[in-house]
Amino acid sequence: MTMTSSNVAERLAAVRASVPLVQCLTNSVAMNFTANALLAAGAVPAMVDIPDEAGSFAQSASAVLVNLGTPYAERRSAMRVAALAAQRANVPWVIDPVAVGALPVRTALAIELLAHGPAAIRGNPSEILVLAGAGQGGRGVDATDSAEDALDAAHLLATRHHCVVAVSGPTDIITDGTADIRIGNGDKLLTLVTGGGCALGALIAAFLAAGRSNPLHAVAAATATYTIAAEVAAASASGPGSFAVNLLDALHGLDAATIDARLVVA
Amino acid sequence: MTMTSSNVAERLAAVRASVPLVQCLTNSVAMNFTANALLAAGAVPAMVDIPDEAGSFAQSASAVLVNLGTPYAERRSAMRVAALAAQRANVPWVIDPVAVGALPVRTALAIELLAHGPAAIRGNPSEILVLAGAGQGGRGVDATDSAEDALDAAHLLATRHHCVVAVSGPTDIITDGTADIRIGNGDKLLTLVTGGGCALGALIAAFLAAGRSNPLHAVAAATATYTIAAEVAAASASGPGSFAVNLLDALHGLDAATIDARLVVA
Amino acid sequence: MTMTSSNVAERLAAVRASVPLVQCLTNSVAMNFTANALLAAGAVPAMVDIPDEAGSFAQSASAVLVNLGTPYAERRSAMRVAALAAQRANVPWVIDPVAVGALPVRTALAIELLAHGPAAIRGNPSEILVLAGAGQGGRGVDATDSAEDALDAAHLLATRHHCVVAVSGPTDIITDGTADIRIGNGDKLLTLVTGGGCALGALIAAFLAAGRSNPLHAVAAATATYTIAAEVAAASASGPGSFAVNLLDALHGLDAATIDARLVVA
Repeated sequence: MTMTSSNVAERLAAVRASVPLVQCLTNSVAMNFTANALLAAGAVPAMVDIPDEAGSFAQSASAVLVNLGTPYAERRSAMRVAALAAQRANVPWVIDPVAVGALPVRTALAIELLAHGPAAIRGNPSEILVLAGAGQGGRGVDATDSAEDALDAAHLLATRHHCVVAVSGPTDIITDGTADIRIGNGDKLLTLVTGGGCALGALIAAFLAAGRSNPLHAVAAATATYTIAAEVAAASASGPGSFAVNLLDALHGLDAATIDARLVVA
Repeated sequence: MTMTSSNVAERLAAVRASVPLVQCLTNSVAMNFTANALLAAGAVPAMVDIPDEAGSFAQSASAVLVNLGTPYAERRSAMRVAALAAQRANVPWVIDPVAVGALPVRTALAIELLAHGPAAIRGNPSEILVLAGAGQGGRGVDATDSAEDALDAAHLLATRHHCVVAVSGPTDIITDGTADIRIGNGDKLLTLVTGGGCALGALIAAFLAAGRSNPLHAVAAATATYTIAAEVAAASASGPGSFAVNLLDALHGLDAATIDARLVVA
Repeated sequence: MTMTSSNVAERLAAVRASVPLVQCLTNSVAMNFTANALLAAGAVPAMVDIPDEAGSFAQSASAVLVNLGTPYAERRSAMRVAALAAQRANVPWVIDPVAVGALPVRTALAIELLAHGPAAIRGNPSEILVLAGAGQGGRGVDATDSAEDALDAAHLLATRHHCVVAVSGPTDIITDGTADIRIGNGDKLLTLVTGGGCALGALIAAFLAAGRSNPLHAVAAATATYTIAAEVAAASASGPGSFAVNLLDALHGLDAATIDARLVVA
């Protein structure tokens, strides 16, 4: 069963109606934009990322995001605590393995955390290849492969960890290991906003919380929402600065008609 | 004696004339917006938040903000040092007890820091209720009560700690335990900008520094300035992204005539 | 040989063509804007700032920025590792000694790091005076002297450390100890954006990476690019909020004709 624009719009409506509380343990660069993107989409962020608070908070959060950028020691400890607590409390959590591969600390941490049953993994092709054991990592945070190059790796990861894998690119691929959804929306300006991908990880967490059935559709709907909003934002942007501002406005204002007019899904 | 629009405009002019140096020990999510809000209002921010620098800096700062979001261990130590140094040097300092209640580390720290004589406490109703020992805390950082629900708690806190308490809500309440000022300005978009409340804490510190007489009026004037600027910002905003940008512009450009035309005080 | 507008435009084109990977170990306030400024100018940021990742990453980065704001203990360790690795691998690195003088931890660290051969030092007059042993530091992060007041100190530092020194002010001075370049571009609004100076430090790193010959020209070209973009941004800004947004747009769209029309160099 493919995903329709109605599915996307209904899932966005469910986020807005349920106002999921998304605990974010994320990098210091993207924290602000990520929190604002969640608020714009109708969710509530909570950056609770110290060890003695992260676990109990995760148990009662609607969803948890673990993003491995700027992985300071204290935050790494909090990530371990939060992922374990989320797993035990059956709270969906998402891992974004920023720049794994060349960077040893976060790469080891990513592999360790995968044992705690994430509901979704979101990354660029390089990161997905590394997690699957099939790549050496990209040049920092940029993607050096197309999403199709990481398709086998994404299937392997999704099957191995019983989760949804979202690979970013000009066309995003979302897979549960069996079915694949390709989203062809987005804009190149998204790659010129720091944390542009990180914020999507948080939205994925919000959408997983708002609709627990069919996680593949939840992740795809989050991706479609975000990348369609990016198209709307780009239409009136003068560059990456105004694009980022417009993106928050567009996420806040996105309606079913715009989703229906723009969704490119396969 | 109630507060007039002239009082607000004069206190804003005093901030711009004296350019107070506001040391901020604040959460990583709101740091950037808080610093920009201080600059827009005419103050100068200094994010000095490590233990071996925070104390001596606090002694010579115009005011200090301690905001308990993302309370990493090193920052907690710096907060203790800064609050103590501010108290000893008679530098006004403000505490913003972000998300106290459910989160144990910051809740204990807030109670500890209150012993160092803050000039003002700024929080949402849930946070004020918790600090007064009358509530269990909200759901993370969002307010679940109206400011009126926390009025008794605010009175109790203000009296117990000889300080001004500002409770945020659609109508903000500022009290010194004896007199209450209600500010009816603001816009709902303010709740969709991360750090929207945190930045007000910093402005309160700046206004306390710029006019040491009548702290109740200083805190109320900061609140009025910020929430009136929010109304100006909202008038031409297309959503939360452009609203946040406009808010900085509006803080920078706010004049006495606009304050007079918009102030809703009781 | 003086620097022409063609030199500036060619060096900006070289940044865009070579897409340098700039590792940033920078303060938490300016991280987001710094990363976005690098992306807007055509470079790629990577905020890799933990000790066990910073050294190996620096070896393969195009350039490294070390900015001493919010110098948490873990980040200080990473700065030492990164500066040493950059020196050994002949990777150009830039130091921005934010608020040295009154603040003891970062002042000691700055002096220690200077031994690792930075390619450039970027600071306000107060900071340059302190590093040269000739001043007591400013009031936090603001400049209290004009760039000309720090000219002798800049010469001394440049000669002593065989590097380029950039002193910010209404007129920026860039010197290698022998030749001086003065850039008269910019806008006062730049002082009202937090991290406005910090982002320039990152651009300087990018320009040093993109054109290894004549570092004096590289640093001056980065300064000219940034301050000309600031003029373009200010022309349509309504205040510091929209100015910061416009600045990213202007950096992204800056062309040779605009550089030629606006460059004020002496």
